[in-house]
Amino acid sequence: MFVTFEGVEGAGKSTALAAVAAHYAACGVDLVCTREPGGSALGRTLRSLLLDVKSSMVSEAELFLFLADRAQHVAEVIRPALARGALVLCDRFTDSTLAYQGFARGLSLETLTTLNAAATGGLEPDLTLLFDLPVEEGLARVRKRKEELGEQGCDRLDAEAVSFHAAVRKGFHFIAEHAPSRVCLLDASLAREDVLAACLKAIESRRH
Amino acid sequence: MFVTFEGVEGAGKSTALAAVAAHYAACGVDLVCTREPGGSALGRTLRSLLLDVKSSMVSEAELFLFLADRAQHVAEVIRPALARGALVLCDRFTDSTLAYQGFARGLSLETLTTLNAAATGGLEPDLTLLFDLPVEEGLARVRKRKEELGEQGCDRLDAEAVSFHAAVRKGFHFIAEHAPSRVCLLDASLAREDVLAACLKAIESRRH
Repeated sequence: MFVTFEGVEGAGKSTALAAVAAHYAACGVDLVCTREPGGSALGRTLRSLLLDVKSSMVSEAELFLFLADRAQHVAEVIRPALARGALVLCDRFTDSTLAYQGFARGLSLETLTTLNAAATGGLEPDLTLLFDLPVEEGLARVRKRKEELGEQGCDRLDAEAVSFHAAVRKGFHFIAEHAPSRVCLLDASLAREDVLAACLKAIESRRH
Repeated sequence: MFVTFEGVEGAGKSTALAAVAAHYAACGVDLVCTREPGGSALGRTLRSLLLDVKSSMVSEAELFLFLADRAQHVAEVIRPALARGALVLCDRFTDSTLAYQGFARGLSLETLTTLNAAATGGLEPDLTLLFDLPVEEGLARVRKRKEELGEQGCDRLDAEAVSFHAAVRKGFHFIAEHAPSRVCLLDASLAREDVLAACLKAIESRRH
């Protein structure tokens, strides 16, 4: 089963993924936790290029780098894991491309859908957990986390304007409305344990 | 005017490009000499990834990296140069994608054409100089050059089998047949001065 975790910055995707993973690891489930960008050796190089605030690139170049990362990731990591029956938990996937490069950067959704399919060879998530949160709240969480960890600044996408992140959120809402059977919209402002419970409920209702 | 130099490995594209550039530089023409991959700062990072023999990637990931390079190159280098009226000489462009990723790697030509258009925003060369040479002859030239320059081994694409390069050549022939007004097929086994004369003749016949 292939589960993706999507949402705006600071919505708690990665934290929830770790908690879901801990739950299934404790149950002895064959589990692969991965992310985009950066789920393969090639992808880790691309991730540092994509998130480096010093990188300068046009929207189309950014898009193709995300797609290169995805093509390698699907072929090298996700498909082999699914083929052996593992539960694959992936932090960001095709919906992020639609929300960020489509709704926020303004590239054509139709083109993006075709390109996503070229990169994945048609692979789609069985379930997408969509973590929803007002943009300001998410960005405040990101700032707080960086302060706590003593990290300097933020990455190239965190650094975009609030209006950019608002367009991303709008994009995710659009996706949730148009793929209700695949996408489970979660209120990420709830307590962590409630968010985790909602994630597990959604996964269990779809596990074979 | 936008002129691209295409052909199999060792056909003498880069040598001819330098000679053409020397000719127009001596005439005081505003000139930009560039190449793919690697025509922008982002592209130089991607070039080293693409040509490193240690890089491991599926065909689709390779394709998207070339397209990311191209999108940035067109936006940052080629379009601004053409806008100010410069003569742009580019070592490899969209035809290489069709020949290498299409004919040699087996990706769909229709998809590649769509993707090329997405990367270039529809920009096409005014003239393509296609350097044609039997594959064995080209690869022998590459080996000889490496020995003379003392370079170790060869890059990731040089290292492909002869059959791969034969498919690339076949692809270039197909392109020349289907775009005869844009593509000028040159016999790269001729003497350098004859190849240069043919290049200049083709360019001059199309300059405004």
